[in-house]
Amino acid sequence: MQGETTDANDERAGEKTKRRQFLDRRKFMAATGMLAGLSITGQGVGAQEMEEDDSELERGSTAFLEERYPGLRIYSPDPENAEAAVRDTYTSYITPREEHYIRNHYLSPEIDEDEWEIELRLEEGSTSLTMDEIRRDFSTESVAHTMQCSGNGRSFFEPEVAGNPWTFGAVGNTIWTGTPMSEVLEAYGADTGDGKWLMVAGGDVPDEESDVFARSIPMQKVVEDCLLAYEMNGQPLSAEHGFPVRMLVPGWMGNNNVKWVAEMEVMDGMMIGEEWERYTRWQHSSYRILAEGQDPQENERIDIFDTRDAMDAEAAGEIDWQPYIYDQTVKSIIGYPGQEATVTPRSSDGNVEVIGVAWAGDDQVEAVEVSTDGGDNWEEAEFFGPDLGPFGWRQFRYLWDAEPGEYFVVSRATDERGRTQPREISDPEDGLRTIQDDQFPWEAGGYLCNAYEPHGVDVTIQ
Amino acid sequence: MQGETTDANDERAGEKTKRRQFLDRRKFMAATGMLAGLSITGQGVGAQEMEEDDSELERGSTAFLEERYPGLRIYSPDPENAEAAVRDTYTSYITPREEHYIRNHYLSPEIDEDEWEIELRLEEGSTSLTMDEIRRDFSTESVAHTMQCSGNGRSFFEPEVAGNPWTFGAVGNTIWTGTPMSEVLEAYGADTGDGKWLMVAGGDVPDEESDVFARSIPMQKVVEDCLLAYEMNGQPLSAEHGFPVRMLVPGWMGNNNVKWVAEMEVMDGMMIGEEWERYTRWQHSSYRILAEGQDPQENERIDIFDTRDAMDAEAAGEIDWQPYIYDQTVKSIIGYPGQEATVTPRSSDGNVEVIGVAWAGDDQVEAVEVSTDGGDNWEEAEFFGPDLGPFGWRQFRYLWDAEPGEYFVVSRATDERGRTQPREISDPEDGLRTIQDDQFPWEAGGYLCNAYEPHGVDVTIQ
Repeated sequence: MQGETTDANDERAGEKTKRRQFLDRRKFMAATGMLAGLSITGQGVGAQEMEEDDSELERGSTAFLEERYPGLRIYSPDPENAEAAVRDTYTSYITPREEHYIRNHYLSPEIDEDEWEIELRLEEGSTSLTMDEIRRDFSTESVAHTMQCSGNGRSFFEPEVAGNPWTFGAVGNTIWTGTPMSEVLEAYGADTGDGKWLMVAGGDVPDEESDVFARSIPMQKVVEDCLLAYEMNGQPLSAEHGFPVRMLVPGWMGNNNVKWVAEMEVMDGMMIGEEWERYTRWQHSSYRILAEGQDPQENERIDIFDTRDAMDAEAAGEIDWQPYIYDQTVKSIIGYPGQEATVTPRSSDGNVEVIGVAWAGDDQVEAVEVSTDGGDNWEEAEFFGPDLGPFGWRQFRYLWDAEPGEYFVVSRATDERGRTQPREISDPEDGLRTIQDDQFPWEAGGYLCNAYEPHGVDVTIQ
Repeated sequence: MQGETTDANDERAGEKTKRRQFLDRRKFMAATGMLAGLSITGQGVGAQEMEEDDSELERGSTAFLEERYPGLRIYSPDPENAEAAVRDTYTSYITPREEHYIRNHYLSPEIDEDEWEIELRLEEGSTSLTMDEIRRDFSTESVAHTMQCSGNGRSFFEPEVAGNPWTFGAVGNTIWTGTPMSEVLEAYGADTGDGKWLMVAGGDVPDEESDVFARSIPMQKVVEDCLLAYEMNGQPLSAEHGFPVRMLVPGWMGNNNVKWVAEMEVMDGMMIGEEWERYTRWQHSSYRILAEGQDPQENERIDIFDTRDAMDAEAAGEIDWQPYIYDQTVKSIIGYPGQEATVTPRSSDGNVEVIGVAWAGDDQVEAVEVSTDGGDNWEEAEFFGPDLGPFGWRQFRYLWDAEPGEYFVVSRATDERGRTQPREISDPEDGLRTIQDDQFPWEAGGYLCNAYEPHGVDVTIQ
């Protein structure tokens, strides 16, 4: 899949699956003046959702995943990898579960909540946490968090990079509920001082030969706002999103939000060395900002967790390690009009309303601009809808006084630290290592991409 | 069903329906130390949701509604009337669609969105609004709104009053998206000055003999923040919640939020008289605060829309009309522990965490207190989770240092105007007409009940 990947990909599927119907409906809603001849009954198609036990479809099959997640474009069913299929997802404040991307390294495990235990290893010894204890022995907390796969936008890199060819859809905004990590650690007398680390490992590893999906998260973030989350928009997590419990790291990239949490260990640093051989692949190798062919340096400790700051520092020669994927970069996505849409200015005032969402990880997004000429001229958009603080996205709109013609519409957000989305992705030969000169660095993992040009939409005004 | 209606009613159902499984699961999650022997697979039971086209069950049947809304306790399937079945709904910020109450006067109409039109009548003549126009010709707005049936809590009235025997569950908190009414009216040159009114009628009337469900809403509220809403938590409305479009009146009781909007008319006052005969039942008769046997006075105009203010004014003899049901009264609901739950203090600190939600209609809720002795002694609860302004509920928690024993736990909220929930519902013979002396007035409709005592929970501490 190339950089030109668009909603037009939706056209590929043939059969009239539920997903197909869902997409048809979403397209209908997205396309002004292009009323498809569908007979839509009273019931919203968003009503199509997951069935627990009626499905005769095989777990790990595309059909199974399509039935459960009609709003997703599927890249692989085993493990499950899928992103939001249409732009409309990025007009709403809340992302419904069936439109929320899934990024798994192994097939989702089938877990009996009654039996599930998290092994918590401290200096003093080990303990086991049951789900009942997690739910009821500690406080309840809720937070809005825009979760994004660190590879979202990867398909726009040229030359192509390996991995799932995410376009724009591997991001969603959800209200998560769970147990504050600080309370759990304090209850067991863990040392939660600055400089400590928490190793968190997922329970999805299928056998003793495979690498364990695990992350080392700095303790200062863990105790500040991390949750053991068991609820998503007021419902239990679904299997593909980490049932019965996942790590929730507000503002940080998806890879830190370990699903099916099985092991946690308080440590003096990151996991490293032979002892952790099966655990370190995703921490030290995969989720790093690397130049092509570069071997990542393993570290026992770092002290910059804002990924953009780390990129800047590495580019400036101030640190000798390659950034780990922690905090998100500032970003925006246009939700309406969709890619290659033909729209008619509204009769009320002759404008077209451009709508999207913007977020900035740990930092508050401060402003969004929209350009209808691919980035030559910019106008300020306005925020609307709920403001849930730095971790949830903001909806924005721009009223575009649009003459008939063809346009390339882009948006760019700026965070409270004044950092703005760059225009494009650089060429590898430029050797760029951080965001500068209005460019996002090409790098081997295709991570963190927030360049606005590849995220723009071609729009025809009638 | 009597005032003592409790979660124990859940025990009635026999067959292993989806709703049954859902309730089992929710009970499991709610009951500390009482692990049922269920084998729960990896997939969250919240995943059980509505199917669009696979159901072979008949619309209007209990089985049909149970399948679509496994989180609800059903009072009638035709028309659909159902409330949240278990207390757990009131621990979360967001109410999932399948836990959001339904209160319909007729069976939900099956509507083809392509064909749907709203007739908008102005002094200058009529026009028709298509769904496409509503979605795309005007701005998009999102708002968090706690919608409550005005009869929620009705079953606690003694002597019994007529109507659906709502206990605590006819309220939900949702993020709604739609078109600002102000833009629609302005686009067509409507007079939107103070003193004008908007008549809004639903498209659910089954025949020409039946009364039309309609409301007269004061224009100042209409233009301030009302929406023509087509989305609920990022998904199209479901049929039972008003697909394709409903009136959204932030902060006001559910009856104002007319579903399947079919007609709107800008008027000089409320609909009244022979001309509006089929339209006035719910406006002038049903949704009023009445003493037993009292015939409500029909009015062409009123100027108090805060229902509590109107109750006060009528009680003081300052107005000669009976309050209409508009703005909500301040209220709170305990979500955990559930009614008749047996819980164990948490090992971390010996406390039990009492969790709930509180809201105040048009006004911000300012404080919540919790009493574990039925209201003799009070402790302040703290808010947690997202704050979306006056129209969305706030989650609260209170850490209860609980000794073993049996307790009656209640909560009461206070709004920014200093109005607090009263203790109990008065006897009819007291003739009380507003909230005073810590009592909520008994009245014939069983509306607006925010007395805390009937909403309390019996809890056993192990």
